[in-house]
Amino acid sequence: MRPLILISNDDGYQAKGIRSLTAMLEDIADIIVCAPDDARSGFSCAFSATIPLKLTLREKREGVTVYSCNGAPVDCVKMALQNICERRPDMIIGGINHGDNASVNAHYSGTMGVTIEGCLKYIPSVAYSLCDHREDADFEPLRPYIRKFTEKVLKEGLPKGICLNVNFPAAKAFKGVKVCRMGFGSWQNETTKCHHPRGYDYWWMVGHYHNDEPEATDTDRWALDNGYVAITPTEIDLTAYEFMSQKESWEE
Amino acid sequence: MRPLILISNDDGYQAKGIRSLTAMLEDIADIIVCAPDDARSGFSCAFSATIPLKLTLREKREGVTVYSCNGAPVDCVKMALQNICERRPDMIIGGINHGDNASVNAHYSGTMGVTIEGCLKYIPSVAYSLCDHREDADFEPLRPYIRKFTEKVLKEGLPKGICLNVNFPAAKAFKGVKVCRMGFGSWQNETTKCHHPRGYDYWWMVGHYHNDEPEATDTDRWALDNGYVAITPTEIDLTAYEFMSQKESWEE
Repeated sequence: MRPLILISNDDGYQAKGIRSLTAMLEDIADIIVCAPDDARSGFSCAFSATIPLKLTLREKREGVTVYSCNGAPVDCVKMALQNICERRPDMIIGGINHGDNASVNAHYSGTMGVTIEGCLKYIPSVAYSLCDHREDADFEPLRPYIRKFTEKVLKEGLPKGICLNVNFPAAKAFKGVKVCRMGFGSWQNETTKCHHPRGYDYWWMVGHYHNDEPEATDTDRWALDNGYVAITPTEIDLTAYEFMSQKESWEE
Repeated sequence: MRPLILISNDDGYQAKGIRSLTAMLEDIADIIVCAPDDARSGFSCAFSATIPLKLTLREKREGVTVYSCNGAPVDCVKMALQNICERRPDMIIGGINHGDNASVNAHYSGTMGVTIEGCLKYIPSVAYSLCDHREDADFEPLRPYIRKFTEKVLKEGLPKGICLNVNFPAAKAFKGVKVCRMGFGSWQNETTKCHHPRGYDYWWMVGHYHNDEPEATDTDRWALDNGYVAITPTEIDLTAYEFMSQKESWEE
């Protein structure tokens, strides 16, 4: 039996990135896509506690089934696992995202939401993102890397509790691959004030990213800025074990 | 000058939990509340990339200012830091949440979204949650603990990149305090199918939680199940450093 891959994203089922990913992998695996019906960028691991969720079948052909869902990226994974997949997927993939999900953006990313949700279900999970927000971004240069990484994960799996956040620079060719740590940075001037014709103020969430570790060469930010594909292994156990040394002062 | 604490939550500015927290702390600090205008449970670290954000002043008295915002919990923190706070807060608190945010729920929690956002801003940040979803839950037993923990953080700070996820059992009294690791568990049967009178199916996101580590006694889940206040130190660096041993096989 061919392996089964569940794919979702946060740009919506019609985005070029998720369609490109499906095309890159459909000869090596059966593919189920369950993705938001429209863009859900910045949705993180959010799920929909209060809205009724619906599924719409968008496409069905040999080896490829595509559904859209009116929920968040994490909803799509949960809905697909319980209501679409007839067997447990061998792998869950988020992407290919239109835009960077490296460094602290991993916390906000709906693409990483998909991948963390897969990892929480103990299924090997990977996020693919391209540092290009454009609707018509060129995903072709990623093809050999995505096929290689996906085949490696299908063959070897991933350690329990660890998923991969893979980011590609916007380039025609890459210098190589770096396994990195998550870089630290800060979003600055995150809200932009505007004035409504009716007389009130409102804000758009638009900021710019500042690299807080410009000297570090082991971060995903450095790898991307220097032309490398960045693989950031990501763990779902959030415990800060180093804090255990302070245990006594908190338990007293 | 008195310390400044920024408070938000995911239950909305009118929830009993956030009003109780404000009342518990307003004699030791100036308080700014900026919280969602309605419930935003399960919003994780989501922010609003596409909706115009508005702020509404709800209350202003000596030492306490309360705004609501139409965005997600993380939006509330970002909006408050840039547009409400006249100085940098000494601490950011999420809560008190009506309901458990221990174990893997930390990934989905909007209360933890507030706290992670504060930590990403390098401000000492804590989430307080009570394992009781009821609107009229009794927060009084938490008072001495919340005052003690908050005063400790105001005095000593927290290590950079580490925030605290503090959960309280639903009880009149607690056996003590445990510093724990995040327990692993799985949400099961997460979607419940219903049939709309117009003839289509829809689903509600309602599941039950299964403890995947029932034998472990060092988890937050164990502490709560056994009557202890659970402090789970949480780090915002998501890197799985143990994976670096596989570095070469991925970079080849």
